[in-house]
Amino acid sequence: MSTNSLGSRLVLTSFGESHGKCIGAVLDGCPAGLELDENDIQPMLNLRKPGQYAISTQRQEDDLVSIISGVFRGYTTGAPIAMVIWNKDQRSGDYDNLITKMRPGHSDYPASVKYKQFNDFRGGGRFSGRLTATYVLGGSIARKLLQITLRIETNSYTIQIGNIKIKNNPTKNMMNSIYSNEIRCPDQESVDDMITAIKSAKKSGDSVGGIIESITVNLPVGLGSPIFNSLESDLSKALYSIPSVKGVEFGSGFAASNKFGSQNNDEFVIENNKITTTTNNSGGILGGLSIGTPIIVRIAFKPTSSIGKIQNTVDIDKKQNTKLGIKGRHDPCVVPRAPPIVDSLVSLTLADHALQGGFLKPVI
Amino acid sequence: MSTNSLGSRLVLTSFGESHGKCIGAVLDGCPAGLELDENDIQPMLNLRKPGQYAISTQRQEDDLVSIISGVFRGYTTGAPIAMVIWNKDQRSGDYDNLITKMRPGHSDYPASVKYKQFNDFRGGGRFSGRLTATYVLGGSIARKLLQITLRIETNSYTIQIGNIKIKNNPTKNMMNSIYSNEIRCPDQESVDDMITAIKSAKKSGDSVGGIIESITVNLPVGLGSPIFNSLESDLSKALYSIPSVKGVEFGSGFAASNKFGSQNNDEFVIENNKITTTTNNSGGILGGLSIGTPIIVRIAFKPTSSIGKIQNTVDIDKKQNTKLGIKGRHDPCVVPRAPPIVDSLVSLTLADHALQGGFLKPVI
Amino acid sequence: MSTNSLGSRLVLTSFGESHGKCIGAVLDGCPAGLELDENDIQPMLNLRKPGQYAISTQRQEDDLVSIISGVFRGYTTGAPIAMVIWNKDQRSGDYDNLITKMRPGHSDYPASVKYKQFNDFRGGGRFSGRLTATYVLGGSIARKLLQITLRIETNSYTIQIGNIKIKNNPTKNMMNSIYSNEIRCPDQESVDDMITAIKSAKKSGDSVGGIIESITVNLPVGLGSPIFNSLESDLSKALYSIPSVKGVEFGSGFAASNKFGSQNNDEFVIENNKITTTTNNSGGILGGLSIGTPIIVRIAFKPTSSIGKIQNTVDIDKKQNTKLGIKGRHDPCVVPRAPPIVDSLVSLTLADHALQGGFLKPVI
Amino acid sequence: MSTNSLGSRLVLTSFGESHGKCIGAVLDGCPAGLELDENDIQPMLNLRKPGQYAISTQRQEDDLVSIISGVFRGYTTGAPIAMVIWNKDQRSGDYDNLITKMRPGHSDYPASVKYKQFNDFRGGGRFSGRLTATYVLGGSIARKLLQITLRIETNSYTIQIGNIKIKNNPTKNMMNSIYSNEIRCPDQESVDDMITAIKSAKKSGDSVGGIIESITVNLPVGLGSPIFNSLESDLSKALYSIPSVKGVEFGSGFAASNKFGSQNNDEFVIENNKITTTTNNSGGILGGLSIGTPIIVRIAFKPTSSIGKIQNTVDIDKKQNTKLGIKGRHDPCVVPRAPPIVDSLVSLTLADHALQGGFLKPVI
Repeated sequence: MSTNSLGSRLVLTSFGESHGKCIGAVLDGCPAGLELDENDIQPMLNLRKPGQYAISTQRQEDDLVSIISGVFRGYTTGAPIAMVIWNKDQRSGDYDNLITKMRPGHSDYPASVKYKQFNDFRGGGRFSGRLTATYVLGGSIARKLLQITLRIETNSYTIQIGNIKIKNNPTKNMMNSIYSNEIRCPDQESVDDMITAIKSAKKSGDSVGGIIESITVNLPVGLGSPIFNSLESDLSKALYSIPSVKGVEFGSGFAASNKFGSQNNDEFVIENNKITTTTNNSGGILGGLSIGTPIIVRIAFKPTSSIGKIQNTVDIDKKQNTKLGIKGRHDPCVVPRAPPIVDSLVSLTLADHALQGGFLKPVI
Repeated sequence: MSTNSLGSRLVLTSFGESHGKCIGAVLDGCPAGLELDENDIQPMLNLRKPGQYAISTQRQEDDLVSIISGVFRGYTTGAPIAMVIWNKDQRSGDYDNLITKMRPGHSDYPASVKYKQFNDFRGGGRFSGRLTATYVLGGSIARKLLQITLRIETNSYTIQIGNIKIKNNPTKNMMNSIYSNEIRCPDQESVDDMITAIKSAKKSGDSVGGIIESITVNLPVGLGSPIFNSLESDLSKALYSIPSVKGVEFGSGFAASNKFGSQNNDEFVIENNKITTTTNNSGGILGGLSIGTPIIVRIAFKPTSSIGKIQNTVDIDKKQNTKLGIKGRHDPCVVPRAPPIVDSLVSLTLADHALQGGFLKPVI
Repeated sequence: MSTNSLGSRLVLTSFGESHGKCIGAVLDGCPAGLELDENDIQPMLNLRKPGQYAISTQRQEDDLVSIISGVFRGYTTGAPIAMVIWNKDQRSGDYDNLITKMRPGHSDYPASVKYKQFNDFRGGGRFSGRLTATYVLGGSIARKLLQITLRIETNSYTIQIGNIKIKNNPTKNMMNSIYSNEIRCPDQESVDDMITAIKSAKKSGDSVGGIIESITVNLPVGLGSPIFNSLESDLSKALYSIPSVKGVEFGSGFAASNKFGSQNNDEFVIENNKITTTTNNSGGILGGLSIGTPIIVRIAFKPTSSIGKIQNTVDIDKKQNTKLGIKGRHDPCVVPRAPPIVDSLVSLTLADHALQGGFLKPVI
Repeated sequence: MSTNSLGSRLVLTSFGESHGKCIGAVLDGCPAGLELDENDIQPMLNLRKPGQYAISTQRQEDDLVSIISGVFRGYTTGAPIAMVIWNKDQRSGDYDNLITKMRPGHSDYPASVKYKQFNDFRGGGRFSGRLTATYVLGGSIARKLLQITLRIETNSYTIQIGNIKIKNNPTKNMMNSIYSNEIRCPDQESVDDMITAIKSAKKSGDSVGGIIESITVNLPVGLGSPIFNSLESDLSKALYSIPSVKGVEFGSGFAASNKFGSQNNDEFVIENNKITTTTNNSGGILGGLSIGTPIIVRIAFKPTSSIGKIQNTVDIDKKQNTKLGIKGRHDPCVVPRAPPIVDSLVSLTLADHALQGGFLKPVI
């Protein structure tokens, strides 16, 4: 199994480096017959890219995708879909003094041990958050595929920034206004406080983390598998591919641990001739299988590792302790850029299982 | 990829059903030359099995493992190691009335949709928590392999039962006394309250959940991969194979979301000529790679789904709402049985990555 | 990927050793709803087993299969189907003097280098032709699955023994009489000469090889893939898992190399409103895909490596040249036992592709 | 598993179409530290490309490779190596009248059934022999990797064109002169007859096939696996990815079928303190493992399917029988272009096994 590939039937292979020639991806296994061009991908890429908001890094990356294979006369052919984003704005100079000083919270140290002098350290190289754009390349296609064929809709949004939690629970109606604010928070009442939290951290040369929630509706019953390929297993595996993620929970999640069974069990009921549950503590998954209720997953992001504040660290060349203040253009909080990435990974995983389970066919 | 297999180089394939003839597993990819017999596996199985304590289910399962291939003259040969546990105590009768009434919190409903009338519903069949014993079959071997070759040690223990959290942080010394109490809690001061919480739930026909923490020490630097096969990705995938798990977090985990970068970043320092960190909020993993500090993961378990209390549900045969009180011998809390399962899945994943990364060779 | 597993959606994992406790297999990915018990497997096992004929080895292996998981109330459940054959007739003594003297044509030498002293050399251990019985365990299920769902029929038979080639080309009618003779040759006129060839070799302490042809009819059009997972790629990979196989060809095969394109191309024609070809030099496969005409593959078997004649070899312990005459009960020709093995591997591969291509669903 | 990927540890993913924007490949799993630039790949591509010789098609394809990821400061980093060849000379017009008339010997018919109207039929699209250039992209890297680290050398050459067989057996010295003639035949005495055979076929609007032999020397002992991942299994799977291949045999191959065991067994002998064999009928592989003697494999190519001669076929649109003479620039024989492709697939497979078996490490 390629370590840079995700999925079993719908396989995304990521390639490229933050400051190399390009980043890109190959999506293999997409059924033939999906209408597709760059305009199906570019909008999600745009929602992820930095530099558009006051609270984000000022790097100007165009992040323009080119589809270079797998599409013929406007439709997918069943062949691998290769996509490339050519890198443009590469100020590698900002990173030159980081070569020997290990940045706390980054992969510099283990990568230098694992790959020795061959590691491409420029801007984090292969470990950069920039590579999450390659997830969006495949994810936007998977998302469209699920929408068109099974009417499955995935939406992800911010529910916490630093210690500011969302005030009002998201409703179905709010899903349309996620991108109406810089925070990607469906509750407009919480947005200002969250922006303030980010700005405040930025001002002091610091950063903050947060939590994304993702909700997927209209799932058929029975997607997934018991044992090792449960929906939770494969969704969490995909989501932990995002460099800053340190926690993933489904439904009632960690809170389930201090509930009673009689509280946490979702009772089944027949409504409108359909079987559903009265609550959704399961997050839509039982025994690793979808049950038709919304799949709910929450993802915890650590605060951005790159901060301006002076930190203690080591110089691996001089083999001595030293100090480091990281310059360059870094996001004080990556969470607002994460929703399209989460949407992508959830969609890739569910589309893969839809193909495995026979819910999707090789030709649409 | 087999949906009942875990791993890339060290592959565990699980088979069997809760109330079928047997449960078992095949471990493929274990290096030749590991001294191995049933006594390396049985103790971890015993720690998982039910029926030994007052707070556990009274099912008497012997859970005796037989190694039926892959070992010759007391050592592994490099060939697949097949192992079987023959089922003995099968009171299927207890489950007969559950066929059409969907048990809340269980897989009955999605499994009946996915596999139709062919699903083996007896005792949960393939979805039963009993199948976690097959993880221990492979996991105990992986754990021994890591201990002997790389001195890697994994220990898992209870840190929360219902709303009772551990009072004193676990120390290295406490690791030896995890199994000195029924709760598998290294902090003896917390044990009584936890037992009370379980007994109280049991008395009212209810159940409780909890949290397991797992700590792994002596890792080499550089185990793992960036992008899709990060240590977090593969560990969480493995851990979500446990039916009751609804949350997985590493290091500071969900709490990282409301920390500042300057708080959450672990500063590097040279100690005794070795590079390490002064804190371990990363849980021992940066960029998907091990950094040599302890790998720390916490796993949230929902309360047992099988409860005696009457619950609302549906009868899929009569297509009508109904009520259900589950009889039979069920654990009011599965958490105390989970540590060997968690140890197993962590060990399998780390051994797989040790083989992938060249830390382990095909022959010891 | 497990090195002891075959397939992508329908995965056969083989385990066991020639003279260990058992040999067995796990078949994962078989759709739910296939009626199955041991009687669906045992007949094909019986056709493979040694000891039934004058020209075969006199080892008496019962080769009785037990299905130990994955079947419930007479039908497959979608869960892994584990099967075991317990070894009985193990005269390991016959092999004791072979430990240090490398048998020509056998794996003894490379296996002793690869696995060192840990290799299970008894009767060839993991390298024994006996392990092909584990292919039949999965293959007989795949064959039934294809017959019932898609009416696909695979038949394999002997077309050459030593230098005796089949006199009359096999016809459809002959397919029913393959097993009416010890040679498994559909042309009764060729049988006596083939038997004589084997007996003659046996008499002189020698062995002979031969060729098996396999024909599969009723395939849907479009099974397979271009590039790396072509039908030829996956069929040949499977067939080369048989220890004695040294050549695999499809359709006109090696003879295609000295034909003109105008001779070798199969012209398309409409017959009975269906598109077919007037000849079948392609062996039923174009561009890696089935075209609906019979899939024809021929497999060359080397003569049995174990022979009574004295051979030169080396003693790896004494590090010197030596001589060896192999005792024990060995087939002077393995070809007549091969048809059920070939049927099995062809069926496993085609069923795997039928699942991949959506021709078969997860539930029958 | 991606159907457009080959390998387990060293994974080549192919993408692109014959007449699309580009063809390309991603090689994942290559160890860090291999000195690499386009000049390591281009020469092998040049040896494969058409248009250089009188006997070849006159299409002028530059086939210039660009490495777009995975290399930093002149060395591989351990990250995926993506490579692209931009298509230039696309006379799609030549193919326009082929859309509904199925070309005999080509994939047109099954591809139109499998992918319906979405198939990219231009120049064969994904099924084109042109895609073998993507095998060379990865194969040239694998070949260099094996040469530098293990001194393994693979050479492939023509031994038969149509009915003209090589007159003198290739010797070690001849390996250097394979590319000194258009046929890629190491025996200069056979070249003229082979050229005549091709020219003669071309003149009559026809085509011829042939046989390639590949020899690999300096293998360590023990590369490979028993059962499903034998060297023969994986090599043949790889080689059958070449569209025109219809036969693959190892060592004495099909000829083994009419030899006696005493003839075909290779006797072991100690020479210069090393164990070797006096003959090499095994083709360097026993029990699926390398034994240190040269790996010898022969590959049968059918005659080019595209011929000028009028052929009968069907029009799938009009659903009636018709006739077809194929225009355009086609090779009357693809065999002389095959050696670098065979070298590539053999090298990819052996390098993959070298990584699996611990003969190669993640960092050189």
